Amino acid sequence: MFNDASTEEIELAMNEAWAAFHVYRKLPLAKRAEFMKTIAFELENCGDALIHTAMSETNLPEARLRGERGRTIFQLNSYAVACEKGDWLGASIDTAIADKVPPKPDIRKMLVPLGPVVIFGASNFPFAYSTAGGDTASAFAAGCSVVIKAHPAHIRTSQMVAGAILLAAEKCNMPKGIFAHIHGASFETGKALVTHPHTKAVGFTGSYTGGKQLFDWGNQRKEPIPVFAEMGSINPVFLLPEKLKNAAAEIAQLYAGSITLGVGQFCTNPGLIIGIESEALQIFINELGKTIQKITPAPMLNPGIAGAYVKNKANALLQEDVHLIAASEIVSKENDGLPAIATATGQTFLNNPVLHQEVFGPYSIVIRCKNMAEMIEVAKHLEGQLTATLMATDADITDNDELVESVKNICGRFILNNVPTGVEVCLSMHHGGPFPSCTDSRFTSVGADGIKRFARPIAFQNWSNHLLPDELKNENPLGIWRTVNNELTRSVV
Amino acid sequence: MFNDASTEEIELAMNEAWAAFHVYRKLPLAKRAEFMKTIAFELENCGDALIHTAMSETNLPEARLRGERGRTIFQLNSYAVACEKGDWLGASIDTAIADKVPPKPDIRKMLVPLGPVVIFGASNFPFAYSTAGGDTASAFAAGCSVVIKAHPAHIRTSQMVAGAILLAAEKCNMPKGIFAHIHGASFETGKALVTHPHTKAVGFTGSYTGGKQLFDWGNQRKEPIPVFAEMGSINPVFLLPEKLKNAAAEIAQLYAGSITLGVGQFCTNPGLIIGIESEALQIFINELGKTIQKITPAPMLNPGIAGAYVKNKANALLQEDVHLIAASEIVSKENDGLPAIATATGQTFLNNPVLHQEVFGPYSIVIRCKNMAEMIEVAKHLEGQLTATLMATDADITDNDELVESVKNICGRFILNNVPTGVEVCLSMHHGGPFPSCTDSRFTSVGADGIKRFARPIAFQNWSNHLLPDELKNENPLGIWRTVNNELTRSVV
Repeated sequence: MFNDASTEEIELAMNEAWAAFHVYRKLPLAKRAEFMKTIAFELENCGDALIHTAMSETNLPEARLRGERGRTIFQLNSYAVACEKGDWLGASIDTAIADKVPPKPDIRKMLVPLGPVVIFGASNFPFAYSTAGGDTASAFAAGCSVVIKAHPAHIRTSQMVAGAILLAAEKCNMPKGIFAHIHGASFETGKALVTHPHTKAVGFTGSYTGGKQLFDWGNQRKEPIPVFAEMGSINPVFLLPEKLKNAAAEIAQLYAGSITLGVGQFCTNPGLIIGIESEALQIFINELGKTIQKITPAPMLNPGIAGAYVKNKANALLQEDVHLIAASEIVSKENDGLPAIATATGQTFLNNPVLHQEVFGPYSIVIRCKNMAEMIEVAKHLEGQLTATLMATDADITDNDELVESVKNICGRFILNNVPTGVEVCLSMHHGGPFPSCTDSRFTSVGADGIKRFARPIAFQNWSNHLLPDELKNENPLGIWRTVNNELTRSVV
Repeated sequence: MFNDASTEEIELAMNEAWAAFHVYRKLPLAKRAEFMKTIAFELENCGDALIHTAMSETNLPEARLRGERGRTIFQLNSYAVACEKGDWLGASIDTAIADKVPPKPDIRKMLVPLGPVVIFGASNFPFAYSTAGGDTASAFAAGCSVVIKAHPAHIRTSQMVAGAILLAAEKCNMPKGIFAHIHGASFETGKALVTHPHTKAVGFTGSYTGGKQLFDWGNQRKEPIPVFAEMGSINPVFLLPEKLKNAAAEIAQLYAGSITLGVGQFCTNPGLIIGIESEALQIFINELGKTIQKITPAPMLNPGIAGAYVKNKANALLQEDVHLIAASEIVSKENDGLPAIATATGQTFLNNPVLHQEVFGPYSIVIRCKNMAEMIEVAKHLEGQLTATLMATDADITDNDELVESVKNICGRFILNNVPTGVEVCLSMHHGGPFPSCTDSRFTSVGADGIKRFARPIAFQNWSNHLLPDELKNENPLGIWRTVNNELTRSVV
């Protein structure tokens, strides 16, 4: 239906993105915010047609897609507000001290955009992490132009969203090239975009294989560029002894829901649950198994993902000393993701790296540790994670400092007595984590701080006040927060 | 005098650094600050012996070294104050909204340290960018343990500074392994340190070749790590027409001083001066030449650097259509860096990438452009720079927007009517810039924001107030600035 972009089309898109960047980056924050809010409006304006197109391409239910579009609109609007508010700019002013030896010059700093950003959307979020998703909103807020590589799994949805963005660009008189939508199912299209000299940053949400490849291409360029790839994780959940004893059945209910939410197709899906051998753990396992058996299978995003789930789950279950606890017993249709729970001992998990890998879908493995020492051992041997969760009483926390600290050290979001699924869009959210959950643990792809991925500081030295950007002028015409001689303030200088 | 560290010594240092990290990262900010201030005290306490050792190893004059030690002490003390003040933590709190659908959990975010940091010091700053320099201070402030690869060009100085750090560590009851000092002139030592699994970040100041190699090693690891390498640049200076006409001779005087300051051995040395063919430019060139002829050569850091300067300068001067304007006519001794100025046309510069490369030493080339269009062309073809400078009147700025914006787009620090040499240590400083001046333009190696290179955000979800770190508790016991529900405040929640 859509052909892969030709080399000439990619060249044109990147050249126009480069030209547009030099116009767009100079526009006031308020103009960027207006553009983002207009995109949000146009997305809403796409009406039911957009929802129905996404339903037909992704198998996701209507309510979920309406919710996800709402979330995407909220992201665009809230990052627009953050963009204009300007806290993210890190504006800082050190005034001159003429009688210092040597004299201290006037120095003022703020963030400026990196340049055109190439974005690869996710298959599992056709709106929120795709064409007009969080990466696009972050890049526009930063002052960058955007080139999207459309995800082949929801290409008509992507095309409609791109249309909404282009309409918003027209309404807001944005420069030609501020946004481009590139088709390409092939390896070559992605490579051409990441390695193009005008590309100055990359955003990606998806698999480890895909993200790591983009990261490597980005670093191997003559001029390396930052590639922020969120590559998912297995999101370990630690069941601490007192809490488990108090609430084994309730936790099992809670997690049966989290494991199977959205057919397990979230990067924050809890794929690993760790407990200590005990009567309580057995109650938890039994209850989780019973609940999973009664969960109705639902279709996965597409046959490719459904096929990969069957294959990866089978491979996990084939590993030595891994046992199936339960699977859904409700009749399933082709391409449904059948919920399933397995179990293994701590030693089995520690010895087999295959069990550390994500199985994308409604699957989780319960690890039975001999004792707390082995649970700590498991925590210390885990790779970087987007999230990690403790199910714990206060006493569990205070009595097990080594475990708590070990878990904290490997995750980007640290959850207590809650589930990892559900990523709230707010400034305090961190969606990222140590490698391999993402390629740079210092940045987030959810929340307005995600803007900082696509911006760099510049310091102005010895500039006259009237020649400075408004953000740094003495009189603070934008009324933003700034650090003036080491003190945060909104006052004039 | 010192042997390269053995594989066993490196293994031991990294294992101890890893163990120390897990103790140190939990210490309160005030304890980190106390440790840093004690290092500063011990550096001062090294007295004249340290200065004399550095003089014997670097050829740098006493006054310069005393000044540089003062700067290093200032860095340690001021980053200690910043560490304790906590603005850099980016603490952020979003309180729960129970009646939202779905309910919004309580989420709170702050920076936590990455892990052990390996630091490679610079040859040209035996104190400020070496063993106890800005990278070390930043890493300690972030909560990381530090392993230094001693620079072979000032190894006894490094050893003495390491002694001061270890003494401070002892006085402050720091965990064993908080700091290690590794000798190694070989390629292998550096590679072993960067690729060690316990190494979680790298700081470097030096050449492009060295920094790029560390960057590649860091990215090629199974678990890639951030390598911040500041690799220098040629720091272009643009002479705009009206300003040049008004002040050609004064600018020449100013820049003769900047080019030869510290025998040109600064990463911010102005190695490229760009003007437009005119009578004023000829006056500038003549005056600069005359002044350079009278500058007394001084010894460079060591025979290796002096030899490289002779070779690289000769190579630059051998390029087609490059002409020597003047060189110092004062008699020089072995290992002196002889100041010299060359010239070429805009076209010659545009066509020859060799002329874009740094010649480390008191050398600069004056590029004579046909007109403003060619000057803009030069600006657009420059690689990323630590600094760029405009010598310009207000009218020059307002009349030449394309030039100003093109220059701004390639530099980390943008200077007006001043010299790039002299890097003020303050929060608003940015020392970094687009590649190849450094490996990640989003971070700085000077100023307290350099701490952020070695820290990552973590979000706490649904934690009870009393279990949270002090930085995120409702009552704000540390009195730090935090963003609470999108508003910056020091108030309690």
